[in-house]
Amino acid sequence: MNTMEIARKMVELCGQGRNEEALNTLFAQDMVSVEACEMPGAPARECRGLAAVKAKGEWWMANHEIHSANISGPWPHDDRFIVGFQYDVTHKPSGQRIKMDEAALYTVNNGKIVREEFFYDMGG
Amino acid sequence: MNTMEIARKMVELCGQGRNEEALNTLFAQDMVSVEACEMPGAPARECRGLAAVKAKGEWWMANHEIHSANISGPWPHDDRFIVGFQYDVTHKPSGQRIKMDEAALYTVNNGKIVREEFFYDMGG
Repeated sequence: MNTMEIARKMVELCGQGRNEEALNTLFAQDMVSVEACEMPGAPARECRGLAAVKAKGEWWMANHEIHSANISGPWPHDDRFIVGFQYDVTHKPSGQRIKMDEAALYTVNNGKIVREEFFYDMGG
Repeated sequence: MNTMEIARKMVELCGQGRNEEALNTLFAQDMVSVEACEMPGAPARECRGLAAVKAKGEWWMANHEIHSANISGPWPHDDRFIVGFQYDVTHKPSGQRIKMDEAALYTVNNGKIVREEFFYDMGG
């Protein structure tokens, strides 16, 4: 698949809540995932390798109840693309309901996503 | 200004149609601006230097009538941020009315934006 095909598949799978399938099929084993900032209680800001990124996803799912999700894009540029994510979730440990609004920048190499970087502002 | 302050100012000025003021105050003289693809009749895909980028902006304004604009974001990550742009415009030479939907990735260095990259799909 070329970058735009990967990008469209990514949006399709995430829009259906099939995030783990996206990780298994579209990402490279040695991928790197980088958050915008360190978060208390969360995995490291930078995760290396598919296993670590899956563990981060499992941590996130265990700690958040999703009320609704909106995925927008993709917007491509050469071997990269951007996707928008908006989530209405309850953070289970605190019981606080929050609206998450972020953009993710993906980099593709040899037909797989090798890097994902999340852009957001925790300052609100 | 730090990256988030620059990002917020960028969104504020572009939201008010003050794009040239944004270029004059927030961007470095030797900035680089890169489109997602080459476009017929447009300036080069990659423009180097504030003067070339301003000329591209003037070309765009001369060739499009803006009916409405929506600017979203910014979403920051270290020294970069993403902004969303949606325009409802008429392409003056063809008379065709089009909805443009793109994301832009900005890179900041020493308090100025040094690189802007536009992400979009001309394939629709």
